[in-house]
Amino acid sequence: MKIKIYTTGGTIDKIYFDQKSEFQVGEPQIVELLREANITFDYELESLMRKDSLDMDDADRALIAERIRQDPDSRILLTHGTDTMVETARALLGIEGKTIVLVGSMQPARLRYSDAVFNIGYAIATVQMMPPGIYVAMNGQVFDPLHARKNVAAHRFEAV
Amino acid sequence: MKIKIYTTGGTIDKIYFDQKSEFQVGEPQIVELLREANITFDYELESLMRKDSLDMDDADRALIAERIRQDPDSRILLTHGTDTMVETARALLGIEGKTIVLVGSMQPARLRYSDAVFNIGYAIATVQMMPPGIYVAMNGQVFDPLHARKNVAAHRFEAV
Amino acid sequence: MKIKIYTTGGTIDKIYFDQKSEFQVGEPQIVELLREANITFDYELESLMRKDSLDMDDADRALIAERIRQDPDSRILLTHGTDTMVETARALLGIEGKTIVLVGSMQPARLRYSDAVFNIGYAIATVQMMPPGIYVAMNGQVFDPLHARKNVAAHRFEAV
Amino acid sequence: MKIKIYTTGGTIDKIYFDQKSEFQVGEPQIVELLREANITFDYELESLMRKDSLDMDDADRALIAERIRQDPDSRILLTHGTDTMVETARALLGIEGKTIVLVGSMQPARLRYSDAVFNIGYAIATVQMMPPGIYVAMNGQVFDPLHARKNVAAHRFEAV
Repeated sequence: MKIKIYTTGGTIDKIYFDQKSEFQVGEPQIVELLREANITFDYELESLMRKDSLDMDDADRALIAERIRQDPDSRILLTHGTDTMVETARALLGIEGKTIVLVGSMQPARLRYSDAVFNIGYAIATVQMMPPGIYVAMNGQVFDPLHARKNVAAHRFEAV
Repeated sequence: MKIKIYTTGGTIDKIYFDQKSEFQVGEPQIVELLREANITFDYELESLMRKDSLDMDDADRALIAERIRQDPDSRILLTHGTDTMVETARALLGIEGKTIVLVGSMQPARLRYSDAVFNIGYAIATVQMMPPGIYVAMNGQVFDPLHARKNVAAHRFEAV
Repeated sequence: MKIKIYTTGGTIDKIYFDQKSEFQVGEPQIVELLREANITFDYELESLMRKDSLDMDDADRALIAERIRQDPDSRILLTHGTDTMVETARALLGIEGKTIVLVGSMQPARLRYSDAVFNIGYAIATVQMMPPGIYVAMNGQVFDPLHARKNVAAHRFEAV
Repeated sequence: MKIKIYTTGGTIDKIYFDQKSEFQVGEPQIVELLREANITFDYELESLMRKDSLDMDDADRALIAERIRQDPDSRILLTHGTDTMVETARALLGIEGKTIVLVGSMQPARLRYSDAVFNIGYAIATVQMMPPGIYVAMNGQVFDPLHARKNVAAHRFEAV
């Protein structure tokens, strides 16, 4: 069962640029994470954009939806910043016949301590096992985009 | 949905003892991994033994089966060494009405590069989402214990 | 031989704040680094400020110089951002009778890959072994502040 | 100032072999550590053997001494297991005109938490700055081989 992975940026892909003394969205980190995890399933990766999710607009979401809609694959993983992950998930709600899972992390994958690797492992299983639908996979739980939000103060997603 | 986690040792829990200049099975590492992953689901952990899975015998497997059988919880995660993981999974095949997932890692969780964190994330989703049954979750795939083996030379599990 | 460590912030102490989606200077990381390194020498630590070194001004440098001048200890380690490390080192050139070493890192100590730990190890030896004077210790070399600069494009310090 | 690095094995180079479920001495780790530290000094590396230092004998020590004696370089770093590091250092005591520093680690460099990187940074500065002689650099201190021992129970070196 092949998984199609789209990356859009977000904290999970942030790396530190010494030259500007700041963190910015870099190359997709998920390729290196999957290699280290020694995975054997089939996947294909495509980078759609490299944005902090606070900088995404309706045009970005329309692009993401269009690309997923036209994708012949039915198992879709989307790495995404956490701040507007729920908003993007809702923008995908019209897409039928596909299992679409959005995942990201609160801490960059490049940190020694990060939720990134666990979240990717969790999301890979989710996209393989769940029936068609749109899901947010964070904090070891699966959320319905219509009943989820990021609790910024508590650094976690919760059902609402 | 509560998850009951049993630990038995294996490579995932190996730490380096300078005093004996060797790696040995230490404290269960999964607690620290779950804390770093910032998970919000409910779980309970119990350490059944601390063994390299090559040192497990029929009595160990009978104990594991008995403890799981009598456990009131229906979602069971078992961390286990990889060398005899399939054998232990088969010893649990008679247990009904529970989703039981066995997971481990090829490299200790304490290493900078390890499959441990990904595997735990993957296995947590598996135990939450799969119907009752006994499963081996390794390399980003779910295996039926009756049709799985560890390919030692290739450092991965495969279907047979 | 006791070492007095002053921290001022800089990249070495940067951590990622999910709430603001950005890296900021956090708690001094050197305490944890020294603990992990299992060091046995005597030291005392004081945090003077938590600044990106680009935000330091003459008043900050006057404060640092004054505190070091009045310190009864003669072996002083100063952790500092790299962008103006040479400038601060020059501001200390009048202080006599002390071995003062400035050190920092190009990548935050919290990253999986960072020059921070090596640099701290190198700087500790430098402050123990060098005669009185002001030194910049970066990239496995000791520089005279009057003949050093950060080559921003090349991510390293060099003699000039 | 060029540094000649000889590696002999020891805990610092131990990696985990899944196939045998044990840690063994692998490739010298110091190359990767120096690359991550972004060092700019000149060095040359040669692997003399890959042994746990408990397995070293007089012939090994004679070989090490002979190679260092004939080396035209005068700044020598020797990575070595900790258990017999002092013994090997004493076997080098007759060599004059060179600064020879022995270093290792209590935990493998491949672990997420290890004293290896700090120790290497410290030892590099030591070999650059100390006058000719034989030194053991561990725990952020420099020891005279004639007055040093490893305190196995306390996981550290100490003066005697």
